[in-house]
Amino acid sequence: MQRARVGVVGASGYSGAVAARLLAGHPEFELAFCTSDRRAGESVARALGAVLACDSAELRFEPNPSVDAPSSALIDRCDVVVLATSARVSAELAPIYLDAGQHVVDLSGAFRLADAGEFARAYGFDHPCASWLARAHYGLPEIFGAPAMRAEHGGPTLIANPGCYPTATLLALAPLVSAGLIEPEGIIVDAKSGVTGAGRQTTEEFSFAEVEGDLRAYKLLSHQHKPEIARALSRLFESGGGAPTAKGARDVRVTFTPHLLPVKRGLLATCYARPRAGAGATAKVVAECLADAYAGKRFVAACPPEQVTLNAVVGTNLARVGATADGDVVIAIASIDNLLKGAAGQAMQNLNLLYGHDDGVGLEHLQKVSP
Amino acid sequence: MQRARVGVVGASGYSGAVAARLLAGHPEFELAFCTSDRRAGESVARALGAVLACDSAELRFEPNPSVDAPSSALIDRCDVVVLATSARVSAELAPIYLDAGQHVVDLSGAFRLADAGEFARAYGFDHPCASWLARAHYGLPEIFGAPAMRAEHGGPTLIANPGCYPTATLLALAPLVSAGLIEPEGIIVDAKSGVTGAGRQTTEEFSFAEVEGDLRAYKLLSHQHKPEIARALSRLFESGGGAPTAKGARDVRVTFTPHLLPVKRGLLATCYARPRAGAGATAKVVAECLADAYAGKRFVAACPPEQVTLNAVVGTNLARVGATADGDVVIAIASIDNLLKGAAGQAMQNLNLLYGHDDGVGLEHLQKVSP
Amino acid sequence: MQRARVGVVGASGYSGAVAARLLAGHPEFELAFCTSDRRAGESVARALGAVLACDSAELRFEPNPSVDAPSSALIDRCDVVVLATSARVSAELAPIYLDAGQHVVDLSGAFRLADAGEFARAYGFDHPCASWLARAHYGLPEIFGAPAMRAEHGGPTLIANPGCYPTATLLALAPLVSAGLIEPEGIIVDAKSGVTGAGRQTTEEFSFAEVEGDLRAYKLLSHQHKPEIARALSRLFESGGGAPTAKGARDVRVTFTPHLLPVKRGLLATCYARPRAGAGATAKVVAECLADAYAGKRFVAACPPEQVTLNAVVGTNLARVGATADGDVVIAIASIDNLLKGAAGQAMQNLNLLYGHDDGVGLEHLQKVSP
Amino acid sequence: MQRARVGVVGASGYSGAVAARLLAGHPEFELAFCTSDRRAGESVARALGAVLACDSAELRFEPNPSVDAPSSALIDRCDVVVLATSARVSAELAPIYLDAGQHVVDLSGAFRLADAGEFARAYGFDHPCASWLARAHYGLPEIFGAPAMRAEHGGPTLIANPGCYPTATLLALAPLVSAGLIEPEGIIVDAKSGVTGAGRQTTEEFSFAEVEGDLRAYKLLSHQHKPEIARALSRLFESGGGAPTAKGARDVRVTFTPHLLPVKRGLLATCYARPRAGAGATAKVVAECLADAYAGKRFVAACPPEQVTLNAVVGTNLARVGATADGDVVIAIASIDNLLKGAAGQAMQNLNLLYGHDDGVGLEHLQKVSP
Repeated sequence: MQRARVGVVGASGYSGAVAARLLAGHPEFELAFCTSDRRAGESVARALGAVLACDSAELRFEPNPSVDAPSSALIDRCDVVVLATSARVSAELAPIYLDAGQHVVDLSGAFRLADAGEFARAYGFDHPCASWLARAHYGLPEIFGAPAMRAEHGGPTLIANPGCYPTATLLALAPLVSAGLIEPEGIIVDAKSGVTGAGRQTTEEFSFAEVEGDLRAYKLLSHQHKPEIARALSRLFESGGGAPTAKGARDVRVTFTPHLLPVKRGLLATCYARPRAGAGATAKVVAECLADAYAGKRFVAACPPEQVTLNAVVGTNLARVGATADGDVVIAIASIDNLLKGAAGQAMQNLNLLYGHDDGVGLEHLQKVSP
Repeated sequence: MQRARVGVVGASGYSGAVAARLLAGHPEFELAFCTSDRRAGESVARALGAVLACDSAELRFEPNPSVDAPSSALIDRCDVVVLATSARVSAELAPIYLDAGQHVVDLSGAFRLADAGEFARAYGFDHPCASWLARAHYGLPEIFGAPAMRAEHGGPTLIANPGCYPTATLLALAPLVSAGLIEPEGIIVDAKSGVTGAGRQTTEEFSFAEVEGDLRAYKLLSHQHKPEIARALSRLFESGGGAPTAKGARDVRVTFTPHLLPVKRGLLATCYARPRAGAGATAKVVAECLADAYAGKRFVAACPPEQVTLNAVVGTNLARVGATADGDVVIAIASIDNLLKGAAGQAMQNLNLLYGHDDGVGLEHLQKVSP
Repeated sequence: MQRARVGVVGASGYSGAVAARLLAGHPEFELAFCTSDRRAGESVARALGAVLACDSAELRFEPNPSVDAPSSALIDRCDVVVLATSARVSAELAPIYLDAGQHVVDLSGAFRLADAGEFARAYGFDHPCASWLARAHYGLPEIFGAPAMRAEHGGPTLIANPGCYPTATLLALAPLVSAGLIEPEGIIVDAKSGVTGAGRQTTEEFSFAEVEGDLRAYKLLSHQHKPEIARALSRLFESGGGAPTAKGARDVRVTFTPHLLPVKRGLLATCYARPRAGAGATAKVVAECLADAYAGKRFVAACPPEQVTLNAVVGTNLARVGATADGDVVIAIASIDNLLKGAAGQAMQNLNLLYGHDDGVGLEHLQKVSP
Repeated sequence: MQRARVGVVGASGYSGAVAARLLAGHPEFELAFCTSDRRAGESVARALGAVLACDSAELRFEPNPSVDAPSSALIDRCDVVVLATSARVSAELAPIYLDAGQHVVDLSGAFRLADAGEFARAYGFDHPCASWLARAHYGLPEIFGAPAMRAEHGGPTLIANPGCYPTATLLALAPLVSAGLIEPEGIIVDAKSGVTGAGRQTTEEFSFAEVEGDLRAYKLLSHQHKPEIARALSRLFESGGGAPTAKGARDVRVTFTPHLLPVKRGLLATCYARPRAGAGATAKVVAECLADAYAGKRFVAACPPEQVTLNAVVGTNLARVGATADGDVVIAIASIDNLLKGAAGQAMQNLNLLYGHDDGVGLEHLQKVSP
């Protein structure tokens, strides 16, 4: 059987480059093309620092497709395209590929919200193709399952790959929501991310001399991942939790505070929720809830919350989650590599599932950076 | 007038060393002695990497005093002693100096809690001298004022220098409590500290290869600074806030989660509180509340919460604080250098105030590390 | 065909753990056992943070073998053993496996020097099994070729895996020596290594608070890798370089200064040599010499010396080398990941070659840490 | 007596900001003005993160002076100006102040070379005011003494503050040259500097994600500090060393290789020289040579070379130097804080000496960053 051909648009950005490397070594996919304006013409293998498989060793970066010239989109050379572009560019490009019958895995936030008004508030511009918002599959496999293949529904699939902060937050909280252990209001997510979460940067603010040794919160109360988290939690509160919650699922209220860490890769989300009255959310119960939810999940490991570290996951597609509680609060923590489980690695899971493979194909060999 | 003589017990530890350096350059105090078992006999100036003032250039470390041999306490050579020792050692040593009429500034947690039972639960041992617990002055000058001098109350003064986490937390929250803007229940403190907060370490857990690039939460729900924070907040709720709170000051409930950052120095506390109904805690109001509270305070600067960074304070005795709010939550953030405003620098403020000096003497010249 | 069974002794150390992870994902080898006293009984997969292949998913650490109880060596359960132990332990253990017919890849310095007297001076103890010194294959494949398999010489093979500093140094200098471009005397190697080169550490000297932001030279003029470098260079001067050198190969004089970098992984060697009179060692010539020497070598890439960085190689088995020159000096620089090309990755190359595989099997998928 | 008024041009750059902080707290100088285009109008105290002395607390940044409008140079408001500007700007501005009778301390390389042709080759442009090249005092006090005050020679003084790399290199090598222990040819300087040595940066190359964990050499054989080092060493060889050297002082040949370290502040130079035949340059002799040369020097401490670390000096104006030798080579190492002893701190020494003060005034209180 022929391997599916996958192209990467924006392959010189941090998550695009990681996606390209994973595809170049993937046994079931062929890296069909890589685009990048800044590296156009350069050898992909050399730029990625990788020992590429034979069939992609000669690959060179091509210019990014233009939204004004769909013919530049290299459509005929791929079955799937991974968009490692900004929300603004993805929102324009994805429909071009979809209309031509190609599947799309979008790493940006362009298709993660269902409501056009909410999208405009979060991203600061009107969505140029809002009709696709409701049709995108939110690709967090451990929580929302596998994307459906085209044959089953008569058209190409659009996968909205979750944001890095929402991935960690939802892995920590989803089982507790589904088990009816926490209330929908008063959820606080205090998250900390390495700098690659912000992509390539050329501002003084992200220079080594300014970031090293520093820590700061940013975008308080206004980060675009807040409505993404709230929407996904609302879906979980609506569909699960047994008896209705005290306030009802529509009252999901999330406070989200991201912080910039002086590390390259890695993201840790410390989540605080109010225990649901009468649900018995003791330390033991919440820990077991996570352990049960992820038993048999290859990429998510439940452990004591003090062992939920960046070192345990950076370099791999693994997530760690842990929880504890006292009478006042339930605390759930998750850690991921923002470029892998928080971006390109999760995209591979989604691609694997879309094509009916085990979700771990091409990801098992990833090794921890921390020795 | 003769300068007061100050000795430092435990002067080779991180905060003890910083205290010794500050005293060596202080115009109003004389560094009378430094003790350290591991460096006994070594030149203090060389160990501290400092260009010491003439009168302390020849100083050498002496062995630590023994609690079993009070005569080893070098009592006759100082007017004040700074204890940079563990809570267990400080609890034994402080009374020896106090009984001899010396003032004590204790950097440990030995005298920060008022209740002996609470102390035993937090520190894991019974306090050997619980009668001093209620007599110690909790030395956070911007919130609880100056320590009183002996002449006024007929005996030596014991100053319990606040913990690093409580210092940052209280600077962020105290004005909001006093202004009646937040509720006493549901307070969450998500704090992040550099490794020097844990003192000198020889375990693999604190080795560079394990800490670099990592982040982890520790001592969830059980850190000894939690009751210290709760006690200080209770005092503020009891004494301030105009009208009584909804639940009453006795219901102060704090969730405290410390995280270990891959940085040497610096501590940032992100605090979440519930807005008090009807108190009008908007973003503008909470920001102005902090600005008003610290107007004219030399070492605490209010600013937008995104500017509350480690870089702005590390190397100095400054704190930065900032706050914002929406209808659901009030967020207040503070940053300090854990070894200065969080330990030795604040001890200098307390010493200055004890002797009637401006609290900034000997601290103005400290320079930011971040260029 | 059955896969060869490989055991790792000392698998919880930094390079042992990396070797175990590589073997667990290797298509041609089976990870037969892992030993570690500190982790005895623990799950190997969990400790390594890896998604292990099925046949090793259940593996648990076993205690380290005792040199006093050869029966503890698990000999019957492997065809090859990788020793990730100290030189002292390796020197005792290797003969036990060799005598039983097992191949040995030793990551320590126990078998890298040919002369017992030189060994004793470098390592501070008499070699307990000096007869094997001359029989060990020095496993730097790009320079000294593949190890010979037992069938060809009637016994098991002992591979002395090169030290991390010698690996980088020799990759930088060997082609220049063989081409007769530099003199054997006056060679200076100024090398800089991340902390994992020193293995797991529990001393304050290696604590984060002491290493972060620091740099220092250590073991000046006395590091045990100096005679290893000198010996290998001598072999190259003796066997190559066309016309005899001015001084003769016996006069190889190396000055070696290692520095400790505040990074986890990565090693860079900046090598200075005197141009051989009349050999025409211009900047262009020395650059082309490296490019020609490594054309077609999978794991060594020649590039301009300013592109010989840690970021380009850390996380991979790649080395980068570059050189330039003026009339006074030839400068050659190499960078490697000290745990991969400098230890466990190179061990895999040697194992692959020993069994007749392409030297890159099981190493192609390694990805750069730097995005 | 009135304090001399000192202005800082370019006070928002890294070394300009450090100079401004030092002047603001200096007992003998008054910070007269600070210029910065990017911060024009902002509070100096707030930008510097400093608790400024009363007389400068209200200071605001003014726009940089224009070389086309000398009247913008704020000449009448200062007695001395510190230029923290690029070589190109300093070369134009310095004469404006000097012609008006103001002293100038230039932190750039504009006046460090004596020969206009050499300057043009090193800096890439013709010096606009080459007549001042020969009149500048090269301000490395421990080696070349104090600058002479105007009264003595009838005009203002131009101090060329040494580069950071030359400062460290010369502190390590100068005593060995003067004592006749090393040869002038074959000197190799392998230097490593933190990123602030390059000033504020907004390129991706200096972003945290690219620098953290990395190390690389740059400007091999072509760095502009190479002729500065060679010139200063030539002066020392010419004036000292007793008997003439084997080759003569004109043959000073320096190979200089700078590396970019993943640290904020700190510079370490590892210098290799050939022992002069018959001069007896043993390990003991070279160590004593440094110890003798710096006995009584406040800011330079001789110690074993393994103790020449960044941690020992960063945050202070101290330098550490150490040396060892065997028959083949003399190794001398120095470490400094590139922004203090390597820039603004040394400028304060020069200013102090120019005005007849002890060179340590205003610098004694600086504290190590490393605890």
